[in-house]
Formats: sequence, structure tokens, C-alpha cells
Amino acid sequence: MSNTFQPYLAKLGEAIENEPFGQHPKELYEPIRYILKLGGKRLRPMLALLAYQLGKDDWESILKPAMAVEVFHNFTLMHDDIMDEAPIRRGQPTVHKRWDENIAILSGDAMLVKAYDLLLDVEPKLLPAIIHMFNKCAVEVCEGQQIDMNFERRSDVTVEEYLEMIRLKTAVLLGMSLRLGGTLAGLPQKDTELLCTFGEKIGVGFQLKDDLLDVFSDKKKFGKQVGGDIIANKKTFLLINALKIAEGETARILTDWIAKKDFDKEQKVKAVTAIYEQLAIRQLTDKVIQDYFDQGYQALASIDIPDSRKAPLKEFADYLYHRDK
Amino acid sequence: MSNTFQPYLAKLGEAIENEPFGQHPKELYEPIRYILKLGGKRLRPMLALLAYQLGKDDWESILKPAMAVEVFHNFTLMHDDIMDEAPIRRGQPTVHKRWDENIAILSGDAMLVKAYDLLLDVEPKLLPAIIHMFNKCAVEVCEGQQIDMNFERRSDVTVEEYLEMIRLKTAVLLGMSLRLGGTLAGLPQKDTELLCTFGEKIGVGFQLKDDLLDVFSDKKKFGKQVGGDIIANKKTFLLINALKIAEGETARILTDWIAKKDFDKEQKVKAVTAIYEQLAIRQLTDKVIQDYFDQGYQALASIDIPDSRKAPLKEFADYLYHRDK
Repeated sequence: MSNTFQPYLAKLGEAIENEPFGQHPKELYEPIRYILKLGGKRLRPMLALLAYQLGKDDWESILKPAMAVEVFHNFTLMHDDIMDEAPIRRGQPTVHKRWDENIAILSGDAMLVKAYDLLLDVEPKLLPAIIHMFNKCAVEVCEGQQIDMNFERRSDVTVEEYLEMIRLKTAVLLGMSLRLGGTLAGLPQKDTELLCTFGEKIGVGFQLKDDLLDVFSDKKKFGKQVGGDIIANKKTFLLINALKIAEGETARILTDWIAKKDFDKEQKVKAVTAIYEQLAIRQLTDKVIQDYFDQGYQALASIDIPDSRKAPLKEFADYLYHRDK
Repeated sequence: MSNTFQPYLAKLGEAIENEPFGQHPKELYEPIRYILKLGGKRLRPMLALLAYQLGKDDWESILKPAMAVEVFHNFTLMHDDIMDEAPIRRGQPTVHKRWDENIAILSGDAMLVKAYDLLLDVEPKLLPAIIHMFNKCAVEVCEGQQIDMNFERRSDVTVEEYLEMIRLKTAVLLGMSLRLGGTLAGLPQKDTELLCTFGEKIGVGFQLKDDLLDVFSDKKKFGKQVGGDIIANKKTFLLINALKIAEGETARILTDWIAKKDFDKEQKVKAVTAIYEQLAIRQLTDKVIQDYFDQGYQALASIDIPDSRKAPLKEFADYLYHRDK
């Protein structure tokens, strides 16, 4: 991430470090500190802070509500990891592995409440609107996760359904983070709406980039197994499109790999990646990512604020677009 | 429950029935409607409505925030049932049995968010105080549940620790429900504090009564297996006190029954109940229940409002005190 963002990241890190979530019983609170310390890019609170700066300069005054979106995001990770039976998150054991499932359920519940607690640190008159937008986003994220789980049992997921699922599961939280920042800065509603659109569009692009990087990325930079989605038959944008486009022998080979119970992982990744290349899935995905980011940039451009003030947000979106890990 | 309360219960039932939690995906929303339809005594929203009536008459105007505490309570049941591996709740399969654990986790999460959504239906100026009291209560309930789970692995739980656990797990929500009602009615803070104390005291008494009824109740009225806590070695107020008081041969027999892996359930219930009788645990528990209710009544009496207005709340507490199921 560029140097522009270091002061924000530093203050966010400090605020998270210093937040006294609670002490007793330790089984409830240690997992909260643990998952928040695993790091990550702090994208969502960054978006809130940068959106705030469209209207006001004193971004340090909204660190707590900005943290709320990070705490909420990590709550969803803690519960999703149970549901996905994921053993590792950011190179470390997941909470339900390091402790147990009950602790991960309950500690996650407490985390969701703590997110609401952090939201209380806003002007009282703004609170109803903020709780409302937060609730709407939070249930949509739950809907997205459930739809994603439902996809596991389906073989007929369409591209449109997939895009709607990732909008709910991932993009609405980016949109809400931006809307939160804009609302706290007192921007007019038409601008906070545009910020939300900006966030949802780049959010979908961001998730599609994730799908792409899982297959086409430098192993050293990526930090996790390249091709993990292929091995697990995860219904990503790439696979759904490949299944839609492939014909004849190619279609047969692809569905064979998906059906295989016993296989060499490396061989499967290589074979399916070759099919993606053959079907130009990479180019297709790149094009769709660009479309989503373009739509996002368009929304940002429509906000009636000088470009100089919007520059950091634009730079942040560019960073998300160009990231290679 | 006496006829005094039927109009409230009827309106609450209607409001819960008509609340459109959401539709898609159905795996997220059906469990919410399912668990809320299992019924229960709606104690917590009843307390909110009755507390509101200390100050104002139009109790139908606060049905939504009153429902929030019922939705929250059922969220905790949905997640607790996963953690406790409970197959049955109110004679029906629990959500994680009827659907699966992942659905119970996620649907519970959505339910918690929906509780916050219902709280939005209050005067905006009251919202910060209401979200604050709700958050405080919600994390305390989580703390209570975690402490309860920790007790399962301990054999040295003291009476004081047990009382604090049930205060957190059960009583604070009764206290908060009353405080919520009083706050919405615009009562002064000293009175909402007293309402909260009233609720916490009768809440502890209520849970102790639960412990007692599990052992000493009429099977037909009780609706679940009498002695379930004894069979499961659950550390209730009765068992903790029996372990503390028992000496010599009695202590040996009691600890033997606790240690036994293979036993006839009926025989164990009979034997442990006999020990409780012998040690006068029933009388001891009755006395402590009475003390807690008395402390609660004292707090209620200290509220500077005519007794006639407080009569329904007093009657409701009497009902909780005298219940036999």
C-alpha cells in the first residue's frame, strides 16, 4: 500500500490495539484480540476514513466508528471459518481450531455487539441513520454467506447469481463503510449514495480479482496455495464461466476433473488452469473487473467535490485494482 | 398466566407473527420464524410493556422495541442450543437439528441484527441510551454463557460464582427489558435503575426456581424430563450447595453418582433427589429464591409511582415466583 495511507493504517492499528474489548471470561475476549491482530489490509475502515475526508479533515475523530466495520468484518470471518471448516486464516490457526467451535460462535457474537458499541461514538443525531445502514448491510452480508453455502449444493449457478452473491457477501460492506464515512462528514445524501455505489462496484471488482488471483498469481506473493479454489471445486467467477463456455472435449475434461474424488492436486490445478487459458477466462474476468471498477470510478466522479479531495480515495481504489496478492 | 396479561400477550403474538424478517434465502429466515413460533412465555417483552405502563398508557406504541428483547433472547437460545448440543427445545427439534449447525449460526447472527433493527423504532433522541443499555446487556449475556460453559470443566464452582453466572446469563436481560420499558416511558434515571435492580433480582430468583423445578416438579405440568439436570450432572444451585454441605457417607454417595458413567437414569434421579431432601436443599433454595424476590420487590417499592400503577408488574413478578412449571 502506498505511503499516502500509512498514517491512517498506523492510527487504526493503534486504536485496535488499545481497544479494551473486555477481560473476563478470557475465552470470550482473547479470540477477539487474536483475530484482529492477524492483520489484514484494514480496507473497510480505510474506506470509511477516506470517505470522511471528502468532507472533513479531522479523520482521527472517527476512528471508533471506522473500527466498527473492521470488527464487524472480523466477526463474519470468525463465523464463516467455522461454517467453511477453514483451519487457517492469514497463516495462523482459525479461532475454532485454536480454541473450539463454541468459543468461536460466542466470541463472534460478542464481537458483533462490540461493533455496535463502537458505532455509538458518533454525534447522537446521526445514530439512527448509522444503525439503520449498518443493520441493512449486516443482514445482506448474512444473506450473501447463506447463498454462497447454498451454491455448494448446486451445479447450475448462473453468472448473474454469482455476481449478486458476491455483491451481498463482500461488496455491500465496502459500500457501507464509504457511506458511513461520508455520513459522518455530513455529506448530502446524494453523495453518500454515490459513495455507496462506488464501494459496491469496486467491491464486486475486488472479489473477482480475488477469484483471479487464486489461480493466476505469483505463489510467493500470494501467501496461500495457488489454485485452492480449483482443488476445492469452488464455484468462482472463473469456473462458472468456464462451465458455461466450454464445449465438447473441453467441457468433458473440465467436468471430469470436477467429479474426480481422487486426484493429484498439482495436476488438477494445472489442467483446469490450462482450460481457463484455452477459454480465455482470464481475459474475460479481467474485462469484467475493469468494467466494475470503471462503474465505481464513474460514481466517484459524479460526486460534486474537487478532484484533489477525491484523490486519496481514487488512489486507494487503484491500489485495489492493481494489487497482485 | 393471569387474564391481566392476555391483551399484551395477544398483541405481542400478533406483532411477532406479522414481522417480515425477510424471505430470501429461506435458509436464513425460516429458522427465525420457526424458533419465535415455538412460543415460550414472552416474559421479557412483557416486562418491557409493563415497565412502560408505569409512565405511559399507550403500550402498543412500543411493541417493536419490546419484540427486540424477545428476538434477542431467541437468538441466544438458537446459539446456546448448538453449544449445548440440545436436540429439543419446547418439544420441537432445535434449529441446528432441524436444519444444520451452519444455518443455526448464521440465522442466529441475522436475528441479532434484526433485534437492533427493531430497536430503531423509538424516539431518535432515546436511541443512544437504548443501544448502549442493549449492548451492555448483550455482552453480559455472552459472558454468562461462556462462564457457564467453563463451569462444565470445573468441580470447584462456588455458590457466589454460580449466582454471578446466572445473573449475567439470565437476570441482566430481565433487568434490561424493564429498563428499556421505563426509558421509553420517559421515567427518571433513578427509577429506571430501580427497575433494572428489580429485574435482576427477580431474574436470579427466576433461574433458581428453574433449577428447583427441574428436580421438584410435577412431571405432567413440567413438560420435560424431571431430573434432567441431575442426569447431566449440571452444576445447578442445588448440586453446588449439596456438594458444599454434604459430609461423610452422604458426600461419598453423591460424588459416586456424579462420577458414574453407566447408570439407570431414574435410579440416579431418585438417589440424588433423596440426598437433596436429606440436606434440606429444597428449603435452602426456596429461602434464597424468596430473598431475591424480596429484594426485587423492595426495589419496585422504592419507585416513586402510585402502587396502583405498579400493580401489574407486581402481579407479574408474583406469577414468576409462584409458577410450578
